[in-house]
Amino acid sequence: MGTAMLTLLGCGVVANQVLPKTKGNDTGWVLITFGWGIAVFAGVYAAYRTGGHLNPAVTLGLLANGSDMFAGTDQLPAIPATGGTVVTYLAGEMVGAFLGAVVVYLAYKRHFDQDAPGGIKLAVFSTGPEVRSYGWNFVTEVVGTFVLVFVVIMFGNTPSGLGPLAVAFLVVGIGMSLGGPTGYAINPARDLGPRIAHAVLPIKGKGSSDWGYSWVPVAGPIVGGVLAGLLAMAF
Amino acid sequence: MGTAMLTLLGCGVVANQVLPKTKGNDTGWVLITFGWGIAVFAGVYAAYRTGGHLNPAVTLGLLANGSDMFAGTDQLPAIPATGGTVVTYLAGEMVGAFLGAVVVYLAYKRHFDQDAPGGIKLAVFSTGPEVRSYGWNFVTEVVGTFVLVFVVIMFGNTPSGLGPLAVAFLVVGIGMSLGGPTGYAINPARDLGPRIAHAVLPIKGKGSSDWGYSWVPVAGPIVGGVLAGLLAMAF
Amino acid sequence: MGTAMLTLLGCGVVANQVLPKTKGNDTGWVLITFGWGIAVFAGVYAAYRTGGHLNPAVTLGLLANGSDMFAGTDQLPAIPATGGTVVTYLAGEMVGAFLGAVVVYLAYKRHFDQDAPGGIKLAVFSTGPEVRSYGWNFVTEVVGTFVLVFVVIMFGNTPSGLGPLAVAFLVVGIGMSLGGPTGYAINPARDLGPRIAHAVLPIKGKGSSDWGYSWVPVAGPIVGGVLAGLLAMAF
Amino acid sequence: MGTAMLTLLGCGVVANQVLPKTKGNDTGWVLITFGWGIAVFAGVYAAYRTGGHLNPAVTLGLLANGSDMFAGTDQLPAIPATGGTVVTYLAGEMVGAFLGAVVVYLAYKRHFDQDAPGGIKLAVFSTGPEVRSYGWNFVTEVVGTFVLVFVVIMFGNTPSGLGPLAVAFLVVGIGMSLGGPTGYAINPARDLGPRIAHAVLPIKGKGSSDWGYSWVPVAGPIVGGVLAGLLAMAF
Repeated sequence: MGTAMLTLLGCGVVANQVLPKTKGNDTGWVLITFGWGIAVFAGVYAAYRTGGHLNPAVTLGLLANGSDMFAGTDQLPAIPATGGTVVTYLAGEMVGAFLGAVVVYLAYKRHFDQDAPGGIKLAVFSTGPEVRSYGWNFVTEVVGTFVLVFVVIMFGNTPSGLGPLAVAFLVVGIGMSLGGPTGYAINPARDLGPRIAHAVLPIKGKGSSDWGYSWVPVAGPIVGGVLAGLLAMAF
Repeated sequence: MGTAMLTLLGCGVVANQVLPKTKGNDTGWVLITFGWGIAVFAGVYAAYRTGGHLNPAVTLGLLANGSDMFAGTDQLPAIPATGGTVVTYLAGEMVGAFLGAVVVYLAYKRHFDQDAPGGIKLAVFSTGPEVRSYGWNFVTEVVGTFVLVFVVIMFGNTPSGLGPLAVAFLVVGIGMSLGGPTGYAINPARDLGPRIAHAVLPIKGKGSSDWGYSWVPVAGPIVGGVLAGLLAMAF
Repeated sequence: MGTAMLTLLGCGVVANQVLPKTKGNDTGWVLITFGWGIAVFAGVYAAYRTGGHLNPAVTLGLLANGSDMFAGTDQLPAIPATGGTVVTYLAGEMVGAFLGAVVVYLAYKRHFDQDAPGGIKLAVFSTGPEVRSYGWNFVTEVVGTFVLVFVVIMFGNTPSGLGPLAVAFLVVGIGMSLGGPTGYAINPARDLGPRIAHAVLPIKGKGSSDWGYSWVPVAGPIVGGVLAGLLAMAF
Repeated sequence: MGTAMLTLLGCGVVANQVLPKTKGNDTGWVLITFGWGIAVFAGVYAAYRTGGHLNPAVTLGLLANGSDMFAGTDQLPAIPATGGTVVTYLAGEMVGAFLGAVVVYLAYKRHFDQDAPGGIKLAVFSTGPEVRSYGWNFVTEVVGTFVLVFVVIMFGNTPSGLGPLAVAFLVVGIGMSLGGPTGYAINPARDLGPRIAHAVLPIKGKGSSDWGYSWVPVAGPIVGGVLAGLLAMAF
């Protein structure tokens, strides 16, 4: 439910930005970054009973780190990320990400029915680079996810009292600062789940799902998350 | 008083955005969404003695859920939503929403006196769809209100300490992400009360109150809110 | 010191928006409203030892109400607003507002030296209406200040834990929603102190200080603040 | 690590704003100011074990004041700023600021490879004045840093519970209000570390590192910070 809320609000804000005839059409990057930040905020609350896992890169980073996200803050009851629970988390994150994107399609149905380039319609679902260069795009996703997971682990070590709000602000900032080249997937489920939805749904004039790029926003976040988990252990 | 504060600040930000010669004219969707979010924030405090009820969809969703909004957080003293108090809440919400919209008319009097299309002046008071399609517009309002009520109930189950601020952020996010097609009433009183004010007030060149659409932002939010209340019970 | 910080950051953000060749030139109303909100935030902290008084309309509203701003929240040590302390507060607020505006002149000296209409340079210091109509402009200032003081008193009655942040958000929202017609003085010292600075400082090509309008942003906020204090007592 | 996080996210948001073909290209000053604010937020958490020192001007201001940033709030464990620890802090802040800027170069590699004026590429790393006038630019940096350090010390004396979030908001506000003339270094390490990175890195078509201006964003913040530390002692 948490990851469904994440992609519902997250892919939703992109739909508002890029699809024709919406109220928020072409508002700009501040809209996108705050929209995704609040999507994380809502998603963490929707998933609060299990520790607010929405992102395989965070789940795996916590596993590598040996800690758990909100364990130190008493903000949320958490089921620790261990080998056993991680498989369940990853499956739930993928299914949720897919379902949230399907609901975005329903909420914006009449705007998907408008004429627009296929790339615009794909952008609602999945990220894509502005300058295609798989190696450097991968680096960008590694850096962005490293920041996310490293600072989230620091939150867990700090009596901040902000909990989900702090994570939301951090995601706003990563989007503003490191989202410029690739659109900051920083979450494999957020990108792959909606991409599958794009491939499956009967979207008018939808064009390619760009599977050639699809490994970058999966592999980059996983590498960045695990690196952050390991480095944070050293601190 | 709470719902009056909600529509005073909420309809006010739309007036600033759309009416001629205002300081904030044509600022964009970020202005609208933050303005409505802070309108909720102020409204919840203005109504804090009775639990911050501003929205019949939330009130009915809590009734369906059997819980109450801030009961779990100790943030606000709350009078529980039961069959008896709900009637009082709904009446107060409608009257307040009407009165807040009247004060917006007074605060922006000289701007309502400018020449502008009737649809622009109605937009200050009530929502309208960008692509008119009653069925799909209804779906959009159901989805947006579902997110609102579901996550608000989750807030109530979580020791967040953020209270009204969390609800405000959530409303900002729903507007950014799901407000694109219909302008996100997600609250029957917010739409119907000001629409009645529009019909009654002597606004220069005001045009139609668009009663044909008026059932969508009433029925959609009620359905979405009750669905969220019922589903949240299952969690 | 608090009110000096208020006008330093508040008039500063207007300078950034309207003066030629600044980094933030013509950014828009979101910049103005967040800039003033954070100006209040910083000002409350700078004045925390005496209860965060920055605004004669709030000071007088609290006097009328018989309560004090942060008394209920334990956020800040407060010297109660009584007949005796109020005179001291009002004098400090006026002197501080004047001094803060002088520092803005120094910080933006080379931009005030650029060629620009006199009205633009006055706008850094004081508010002015978009449609001049003293009666209705007065109404707008009454409404805006009523919201400020009424909700601030509600904050004082609520265990929110947000303190100055809540006031800052509220001021952002009032600017977004009710600042469209007059530029929301909602504070006599914020408008009159800098207007005196404008009259006194050797600003290049500065033009009129518009004394004809100057009573509106003094009288309107005082009336709105006292009305809010009295009405809040009835709740 | 904290100052590296600061310049990674801070210089990153400038890259997103000014470099060609980014997602956030030319979004505006709201993006810059929120991006830097959240950069501070993330940086304080990354450096939480030693008290969140990211800025020599703050470190020296606290030394002059005799207090330490978060000592009064119990938010963060703090190693007090004394003669001995300050040398370590300053060295760490410079090295971190340099390294964060190097990672920005990697994350935006393909955008630095685009054709753009050398001044645009330098702007990602270091600040520069809109109207060059070393004396007045110095004044602007003194004023901005004075506000930062004075209010941060007030935070330390106040039971705010906001901690790093309060500092982040303050930095957003200083950028909005006092960043117009010089781009608000308000931190010697933030400007000098990345300027050295600019001089060293093999950036395509990078042009001058503008060493003639480089003393202003070092000396101005140090003077402003120490003045604030001394004045705050008098309060």
